[in-house]
Amino acid sequence: MHNFRITIAYDGSRYHGWQRLKNEHTIQGKIEAVLSEMVGHQVEIHGAGRTDAGVHARAQVAHFKIQTAYSPKEIAQYLNRYLPEDIAVTDCAYAEERFHARLNATGKRYVYRIWNSDVPDVFARKYLYRMEEPLDVEKMRQAAGELIGRHDFRAFCGNKKMKKSTVRTLYRAEVEQIGAEVRMTFEATGFLQNMVRILAGTLMEVGLGKRTPDDVRPILESGMRAEAGITMPPQGLILDAVFYDNGQERGEDA
Amino acid sequence: MHNFRITIAYDGSRYHGWQRLKNEHTIQGKIEAVLSEMVGHQVEIHGAGRTDAGVHARAQVAHFKIQTAYSPKEIAQYLNRYLPEDIAVTDCAYAEERFHARLNATGKRYVYRIWNSDVPDVFARKYLYRMEEPLDVEKMRQAAGELIGRHDFRAFCGNKKMKKSTVRTLYRAEVEQIGAEVRMTFEATGFLQNMVRILAGTLMEVGLGKRTPDDVRPILESGMRAEAGITMPPQGLILDAVFYDNGQERGEDA
Repeated sequence: MHNFRITIAYDGSRYHGWQRLKNEHTIQGKIEAVLSEMVGHQVEIHGAGRTDAGVHARAQVAHFKIQTAYSPKEIAQYLNRYLPEDIAVTDCAYAEERFHARLNATGKRYVYRIWNSDVPDVFARKYLYRMEEPLDVEKMRQAAGELIGRHDFRAFCGNKKMKKSTVRTLYRAEVEQIGAEVRMTFEATGFLQNMVRILAGTLMEVGLGKRTPDDVRPILESGMRAEAGITMPPQGLILDAVFYDNGQERGEDA
Repeated sequence: MHNFRITIAYDGSRYHGWQRLKNEHTIQGKIEAVLSEMVGHQVEIHGAGRTDAGVHARAQVAHFKIQTAYSPKEIAQYLNRYLPEDIAVTDCAYAEERFHARLNATGKRYVYRIWNSDVPDVFARKYLYRMEEPLDVEKMRQAAGELIGRHDFRAFCGNKKMKKSTVRTLYRAEVEQIGAEVRMTFEATGFLQNMVRILAGTLMEVGLGKRTPDDVRPILESGMRAEAGITMPPQGLILDAVFYDNGQERGEDA
């Protein structure tokens, strides 16, 4: 029995998210089906994060335990041969026996991309959210700075019935202008449900002048979902990297 | 009556090429339909080049003459509002009365992109042709150098019944390695039918070691289509720019 760690890129457009669901196309479901076919019995994989329907990944990480004569390279080749072309295994390696993709993750990086132009980009249209109204990136950057740190992010949580702690440490929140693209990058120890999309929606509203950077602290302190901005649509969101303590960060070299 | 010049980007995946065809989805057909709707009568547009089914464009150029009160900016906005999201007008401007997108073009640039890796790229899969066998880019570069100049390119012409001159001047033929991408760039005064895809196929076969750079001259001199390489699939091809004499090159600033 070996424990394998895989890194996965996917175009989430056609999928009902990461997590296996009966009768729905999901990333986890597709990968498990191919792996199960390969070894001849049901295989379960464990992903680092559950991305929502329509959300993409450049470097999702998952692990699974199987008995096999295939090498990691052969497993990756097998998966890439039989997976649909919008899911790709970019790396496969032996992991320590106790490695757990979700429980051992020490952080994740998500990127939210807005195509901020009245001229559509036909090639990136599925991976960026398009907005015509010009955004004030400098204001967004100031607002992002207010979010950094260890806070109770309850106001940015999409799950109203969340009973566990909503305290997280956001150690990076950046806003860049790259041509017509406004790119927001968030790194944290962990994220709440819809948190990145609500953070992005709040910064977007600052960029439109509907809010100011000074509004961010009161939103955090209120702990009220209604005080924060909208939940941005999924297609602009990408799980960019998952971090592990012992140098097992995935995605940097892709 | 004004003459307008538009620059158009499209993802050709869903289309039966540029040229209007009865009962087929084509880029020209889509744009003409929206323009005709705008002015209330049939409008004909003239493109700089006829891209084949499945071929993309970053900066195709076309012109059309209409009587309208709309400004160029308003025309672009109207088109982008009603065109499908895989076709975008990236520029619209008044042109001189005698400007003709095809007849006045002094050159074009096409790019053929190969994703040369055993790891698929899920985000670029529709715009690059994927090949697992490693290519010898240095050999391809040498072979490309042999193609530059004024030659009879009959051996690289997909139209067997071509009666007009098949002499063209290829003034740029480059092969670059950009990460896992092998990118071929061709600039010429004009291109024959399927010429870029046959040039790319020939260079690809050099990259695989099936041919050598020394084979290129004899292929040119033979004038025989059967001597040249395969016609590469359309999805890796993009019309990247159209050149005009008076500084009206389109696509450089996109």
